[in-house]
Amino acid sequence: MAVPELTATDLQSILKFTEQLARTAGKLILEGSKAIQSAPDSQADIGEKKNAVDLVTEYDVRVEELVKSTIKEKYPDFQFVGEESYAAGSRNPLTDEPTFCVDPIDGTTNFVHGFPFVCISLGLIYKRRPVLGVIYNPFLDHLYTGIKGQGSFLTRGASAPVKLPLSSPKPLPSLSQAIIAVEWGADRTASTIDSKSRSFGRLAGDPEQGVAGGKMAHSLRSMGCAALNFAMVAQGGLDVYWEIGCWPWDVSAGIVIAEEAGGLVSGAHAAFEATASSDAFGDVTEEILTGRKYVVVRAIAGNPGETGKDAQKRIIKELYDTVEDVPAN
Amino acid sequence: MAVPELTATDLQSILKFTEQLARTAGKLILEGSKAIQSAPDSQADIGEKKNAVDLVTEYDVRVEELVKSTIKEKYPDFQFVGEESYAAGSRNPLTDEPTFCVDPIDGTTNFVHGFPFVCISLGLIYKRRPVLGVIYNPFLDHLYTGIKGQGSFLTRGASAPVKLPLSSPKPLPSLSQAIIAVEWGADRTASTIDSKSRSFGRLAGDPEQGVAGGKMAHSLRSMGCAALNFAMVAQGGLDVYWEIGCWPWDVSAGIVIAEEAGGLVSGAHAAFEATASSDAFGDVTEEILTGRKYVVVRAIAGNPGETGKDAQKRIIKELYDTVEDVPAN
Repeated sequence: MAVPELTATDLQSILKFTEQLARTAGKLILEGSKAIQSAPDSQADIGEKKNAVDLVTEYDVRVEELVKSTIKEKYPDFQFVGEESYAAGSRNPLTDEPTFCVDPIDGTTNFVHGFPFVCISLGLIYKRRPVLGVIYNPFLDHLYTGIKGQGSFLTRGASAPVKLPLSSPKPLPSLSQAIIAVEWGADRTASTIDSKSRSFGRLAGDPEQGVAGGKMAHSLRSMGCAALNFAMVAQGGLDVYWEIGCWPWDVSAGIVIAEEAGGLVSGAHAAFEATASSDAFGDVTEEILTGRKYVVVRAIAGNPGETGKDAQKRIIKELYDTVEDVPAN
Repeated sequence: MAVPELTATDLQSILKFTEQLARTAGKLILEGSKAIQSAPDSQADIGEKKNAVDLVTEYDVRVEELVKSTIKEKYPDFQFVGEESYAAGSRNPLTDEPTFCVDPIDGTTNFVHGFPFVCISLGLIYKRRPVLGVIYNPFLDHLYTGIKGQGSFLTRGASAPVKLPLSSPKPLPSLSQAIIAVEWGADRTASTIDSKSRSFGRLAGDPEQGVAGGKMAHSLRSMGCAALNFAMVAQGGLDVYWEIGCWPWDVSAGIVIAEEAGGLVSGAHAAFEATASSDAFGDVTEEILTGRKYVVVRAIAGNPGETGKDAQKRIIKELYDTVEDVPAN
């Protein structure tokens, strides 16, 4: 069967549908939050997935079912990849077909605790590349959208959409000027935790006050939501976000939104090094998309004689020279 | 001179004034953010305070001047403690007089980067105890208020104020069920960074997977704004916030708002141990208020046979048995 052609107009129409779906799902997420918070002892109702940190609630499943059935009705030929169905065993490999790649509730731990950095992340992958993304945080009523080649936007409450990034790209001389998002994640083994602790400490530490290899970054932030971290880099509120262990559905939407805001996405240490000196640098290949190791850097005004893309490469190189790679468990 | 008596009605009237002041200051903060973000190279205009991490902008001073002069006009006899005037040398010791304790822009690093977790924090100290607090994040239009003995509230946008915490207190069996705010802070010396890295790693790490003393907390968050961390604990979105190195003006307002939401505030390891078994536990004395080491725990429904306050004590003890004390530099 031939892969259907998706025109720019098709994508605009899909975006309208996806935005509406995100807002409808957002209502269900808010309902879920209310139900969880008003339960006499919410802890009792929470299932354990991989470990106590990695919480899944009933609403995760309900939101995914809502999303899946709504898409099925409107776009019966589109493929679907989501956290819940993936965990249930239907691990369809990526094809060239239009494929929705969805995290029904990104930031599940936040969701359970009522920490309002939670979103639904709806990405569309086409010919194995992310081409459209919608990220919606119903708690703050922040909607991020993007279409490949058509820009990305933030809609806050009833305000008009504003183009991303929110201001024109600034220089970024080094990581010492950067605010960097990192996450402690779900892998709490000694080797990963020790490696992350050392890496974060080097990013924060002052080399002139005894921290070997210290970068003295402006600071480190951890909000606990991969999609919203991508969105915040797109917005320009974070300079860099680096994470190991999240999944394609956490990042598909964010990749489009960040790239359309001038951001650059790459993969693991090895994937970065393999592409850094080629034209492929900045192309989020299937290998990077499914590689579970991601780095995203905001739009940068390069130093004199330096392109923005070269500046982004320089920042990723500095990051990867500083932090340790760990397995994506 | 006798200290003026402040009645509950007086405090309500002061709160109205302070709320209005916070909103006016919020407009100036937003104006400042716009100016910084639209400057051709914002880095050039940023002053250096203690080190590159600890940024102070022109607007920090302008907002403090606005706040100071507005208070002076309305309450000419009230004392004032603020970051800018403190840094300039007028280090008035606390008295019994009503004293506004103000951080004009808390989250300066976020402010400079356009990361929207920034607030003005306005606390009132009376007879050496925090009695009133207003925290306003103009980027999200979130206003937190509290008066000692009269409850605390959150007003989001044009919505009506809601009482804090947002839902009835849940149990908290141990840190393994907790979402904990920590910050990397401004002290980037090797000893502090190493100690923090170890402490954070122990909070996150799994004792069953090799992390000695690991608590396997649900997760750690870092938003870079002390006052908003207190507010988020008051709201119930964070279980615990622990920090070393912030100042009375970062926490005065947050202490009232958290306490009125059922939260409990204590000080350093030593201050906690000194009071844990006495009736003084939970009283934020002048020593704790000015001690630059703080811990705040949300309202908890105690285990069977355990009061909420005992549960809070248990959680702080578990935290202080896990993390290392460091000097407040």
